[in-house]
Amino acid sequence: MTHRRLFLLWIVLYGRMGFAQEADVKVPIPTPAQRAWQEAELGVVFHYDLHVFDGKKYDQRSNRVSAVADYNIFHPTRLDTDQWILSAKAAGASFAILTVTHETGFALYQSEVNPYCLKAVNWRDGKGDILADFVASCRRHGLKPAIYIGIRWNAFMGVHDFRVQGDSEFARNRQQYYNRYCERMTTELLSRYGKFFFIWFDGGAHGPEQGGPDILPIAEKYQPDAIFYHNLQRADVRWGGSESGTVPYPCWAGFDHPSWFQHRDDKNDFRLLKHGRENGAYYMPAMADAPLRGYQGRHEWFWEPGDEAHIYPVDRLVEMYERSVGHNATLILGLTPDTAGRIPRPDADTLKAFGDAIRKRYERPLAAALGEGRELVLMLPKAQVFDAVDISEDIGKGQRIRSFTVQALVGRRWVTLLSGTSVGHRYIGRLKEPVAAGKVRLVVDGSMGTPWVKQLALYRVGADGAAMER
Amino acid sequence: MTHRRLFLLWIVLYGRMGFAQEADVKVPIPTPAQRAWQEAELGVVFHYDLHVFDGKKYDQRSNRVSAVADYNIFHPTRLDTDQWILSAKAAGASFAILTVTHETGFALYQSEVNPYCLKAVNWRDGKGDILADFVASCRRHGLKPAIYIGIRWNAFMGVHDFRVQGDSEFARNRQQYYNRYCERMTTELLSRYGKFFFIWFDGGAHGPEQGGPDILPIAEKYQPDAIFYHNLQRADVRWGGSESGTVPYPCWAGFDHPSWFQHRDDKNDFRLLKHGRENGAYYMPAMADAPLRGYQGRHEWFWEPGDEAHIYPVDRLVEMYERSVGHNATLILGLTPDTAGRIPRPDADTLKAFGDAIRKRYERPLAAALGEGRELVLMLPKAQVFDAVDISEDIGKGQRIRSFTVQALVGRRWVTLLSGTSVGHRYIGRLKEPVAAGKVRLVVDGSMGTPWVKQLALYRVGADGAAMER
Repeated sequence: MTHRRLFLLWIVLYGRMGFAQEADVKVPIPTPAQRAWQEAELGVVFHYDLHVFDGKKYDQRSNRVSAVADYNIFHPTRLDTDQWILSAKAAGASFAILTVTHETGFALYQSEVNPYCLKAVNWRDGKGDILADFVASCRRHGLKPAIYIGIRWNAFMGVHDFRVQGDSEFARNRQQYYNRYCERMTTELLSRYGKFFFIWFDGGAHGPEQGGPDILPIAEKYQPDAIFYHNLQRADVRWGGSESGTVPYPCWAGFDHPSWFQHRDDKNDFRLLKHGRENGAYYMPAMADAPLRGYQGRHEWFWEPGDEAHIYPVDRLVEMYERSVGHNATLILGLTPDTAGRIPRPDADTLKAFGDAIRKRYERPLAAALGEGRELVLMLPKAQVFDAVDISEDIGKGQRIRSFTVQALVGRRWVTLLSGTSVGHRYIGRLKEPVAAGKVRLVVDGSMGTPWVKQLALYRVGADGAAMER
Repeated sequence: MTHRRLFLLWIVLYGRMGFAQEADVKVPIPTPAQRAWQEAELGVVFHYDLHVFDGKKYDQRSNRVSAVADYNIFHPTRLDTDQWILSAKAAGASFAILTVTHETGFALYQSEVNPYCLKAVNWRDGKGDILADFVASCRRHGLKPAIYIGIRWNAFMGVHDFRVQGDSEFARNRQQYYNRYCERMTTELLSRYGKFFFIWFDGGAHGPEQGGPDILPIAEKYQPDAIFYHNLQRADVRWGGSESGTVPYPCWAGFDHPSWFQHRDDKNDFRLLKHGRENGAYYMPAMADAPLRGYQGRHEWFWEPGDEAHIYPVDRLVEMYERSVGHNATLILGLTPDTAGRIPRPDADTLKAFGDAIRKRYERPLAAALGEGRELVLMLPKAQVFDAVDISEDIGKGQRIRSFTVQALVGRRWVTLLSGTSVGHRYIGRLKEPVAAGKVRLVVDGSMGTPWVKQLALYRVGADGAAMER
C-alpha cells in the first residue's frame, strides 16, 4: 500500500489571523477523565457469570428472576486473564472492563459482604479472585482496568429493578439491608484494586432519592479520577442509545442534563441519547457498545455454546469503528470468556484481524495538520490519492465546531469533498471515491468561539472499505 | 448419704397369675427411634449463630427480619466442641443437638448450596465446619449427635414464616428457588455427617401442601432411623407446650394426630401439647425444652454478655428434671457457646453440679422391681426410709397404665403413698415426707391390657430436694 511507504508528514499551519482567543466561549469542557475516555476510543467489556457454565442459551428475563442454584457449575478449567487482555490489546483496545457482578448477584472476587462470590465455589478451593487477576493482567499489558458492577438486578438476593419485592415493613427493612450490602460491596471493589478508569453501574446506581443505595459518594471517595457511569445525579458519559456499536451522525458530546437516565427519550428510539445536544450545557460524550457476538440474529454478551457463527466479520467491525469512534463516541466491544476461562479462538482471531485492519487504515495518515481558527490548510509535498478524512478537535477546549466543509484544490478551484456538523474528539469521513490532491482545507462554517483542530488527516483506506451509509 | 452405701438391690416379682398377655391391646407402640428418644431422657441443644458475636442482646423479632450484614464478626477464638460435649455429658445428657442453621440463615458448615455459611467468613480461612467438629466430638465422647435445621425463618434470604414476601410471579419463582435451596441444604446435612439421632426442624418443615420444600422424603431417605421433628404429616415427638423445661402431669405419650402443628391448641395455652391424649391413636412423646440461661427474667437460647446471673440454679434444674423426665417427657437443655467458642465456665460448672445431683438422687435405687400385671410388690430385705418412687413402663409395649397407686405396708395395713395416672417411660413421684417400709407395691387400677413395668424403684432423695408441686 502506497501510504505505508510514506513517512508521517506533519504540516502545521496556523489559522488566519484575526481570530483572537475568546475568554467567554460558552461550551462545556470535559473533565480530565472524560477527555481520557474519548481519547481511549476503544475498550472491551468481559461478561462472565454463572450461567456461562449452564450449557444453555442466555435468557435475560429468566436470569433476572431465577437464581442459579448450583453455583459450583462455575469452574473455568484454564482461566487466563492475560489471554483475555492480549486479545483485547490485539484489537486496539486501550481499556478493559470486567462484570464483577452482573444480574445473578454472583461476584467474581473475594467478598466479605456478598457470600455469593468466589468464596462459595469449589473452583480454586474457594480462593479465586478473577477481578484481581484481571486487574493484574491489564496493568501487565498496558490496558486501563475498569469495572462493571450490577446492583439493579440481583436474582440471588431477590432484588428486581433495584427493589426488594413487596411493600411490608419486612420488605422495607430488607431494602435497607440490600442498600447497605451494595454500598459495602462497592466500597470493597473500589478500595481494594487500585485505580479504575471507568466505573459502570449498568442500569444505574440510583440512590436514596428513590430508596436505593448511596453509591456516588463511595465512588467519589475511592475513585475520584474515574469516569462514573451513572446515577440520577451524575453521568460522566452517556449510553449511545443502542447496542449496535454505532452512533448516528451527528453525535454531540453535549447533553441537557447532568444525568441521562431520566431524559433518555426512549419513546423516540433514544434519539436524544444517540445524537446528544449540539449546545447542551453538560459535557457527556457517548458510549457505543456492542457484543462481538452480535451478528446475524444473535446478540450475546455472554459466551454460549454454538455462537461462533455470530461473531461480527472484520469489515462490519471496521464499519462499527468508523461509525462510533469516527462519530465522536467511544466504542466498547463485548467479549465472552468461555467455560475454559479463555476468549475463544475464533473471537481472538477476529479481534486481531480487526485491530490489524484499523491499524492498516488509520495508524499512519498520508498527511496531517493541526491548528486554530476557521480555516486549516493541509499542503502535501505532492498530490496524493486519499479517500478518508479524519478530524479531531482539541476537546480540552470543548466541542466547538458546529459545521464544516472539507475541500480539495483541484486545478485552481476548491472542490467540496464533504461537509458535516459534529467533530468533537474525532470525525472520520469516508469519501465516495478516491480523490487526488496536493492541498486540502478544513473550513469551519460555524463554531462556538475559535475552533481548535488537533488533527486534520488524510488516509487512503482503499477498496476493501465499504462506503459508509448514514 | 445412706442410700449411697447400699448396693443396688433388684427384687424381681412377677405379677399375679391370671393376667394373660392380650393379643389385641389397642395402644400405639413407639418406633425404635421414639423408644430411644424416651430412653435418652436428657439432651442438650447448642445454639450458635452470628448474633452471638454482635455484643448485643438477642432480639428474635429483629433477628428474623434483619440479616447480619457483617458476618465476619463470627470468629470464635478458641472453639472447642469437645468441651461443649463434655459439659453436656457431665450433666448426664445422652444426646446433643447443634443449630446448624437458625433464623439468620447462616450455616455452620461447608455448604455448596448456601453460600452464607462458614465458607464466607475469614475464620479458619473459610474452611471451618462446626457441624463436623461437633459430630466428631459427640462420637468421641459417646453422645448421640443430632441436628437442628431452621428453614422457616431466613433473614439473609428474605424468607419470613416459610414465605418469600410478595405475591408476584417474581415471588412465586423465588419461593420455588428457596424451596429447592432448603431441600438441597437438607440433603447435604443429612447425607454427609453420618447418622443423626434426632432431626429438628424448628417451626416445622412444612411441605409442598403449603408451598414449602419437600423435606420429609429427604429425611426418610438419608436418615430412616432418626426421629423426625416435624412437619404437617409427621412428628415423631411433640413439643411439650412451653419452654419451661417441664411438662405438667399427666403427660401422655399419646396424641390424636400424626402431626401436632395444626392441633396444638394454642388458644388454650397448648394444653393438648402439654398433656397429650390418654388414649390417642398415635405415639408421640413430649419434649420439654428450656434454655439453661432462663432464670429470673431472662430466657436466652444464645450466649449474650452479662447473662451469667440467669443460669438456673441446680435445685431448679433438678426440679425441672423431675417434672420433665419424671413426667414421661424428654428434657432438652439449651446451652450457649460463647464468643470464644466454649461453654462458659459458670454454665459448665452448673451442668456438672446438676449431673452430680441427679446421679446422687437417681443413679442407685434403694430397691427396685420389675414385672407384668396389675400388682407389683417390692420387698426390701429390711425396712428402708425412702421419699421418692420411680416407675417405668416397658414402653416397647406401649403406654398402658391409666391409673395407679403406690402403697407401703405399714404395720399390717397398706397405706397409699401416692396415686397417679400416666407412667409411660418414667414417672418420678416425690413423697411429701420420708416413709420407712419394707414392702411397697404398685397397684394398677386402670390399664389398656396388661401393664408391663420395667422398673419400680425407691429412692432416698433427702431434704435437699424441694417437694414437687404440680
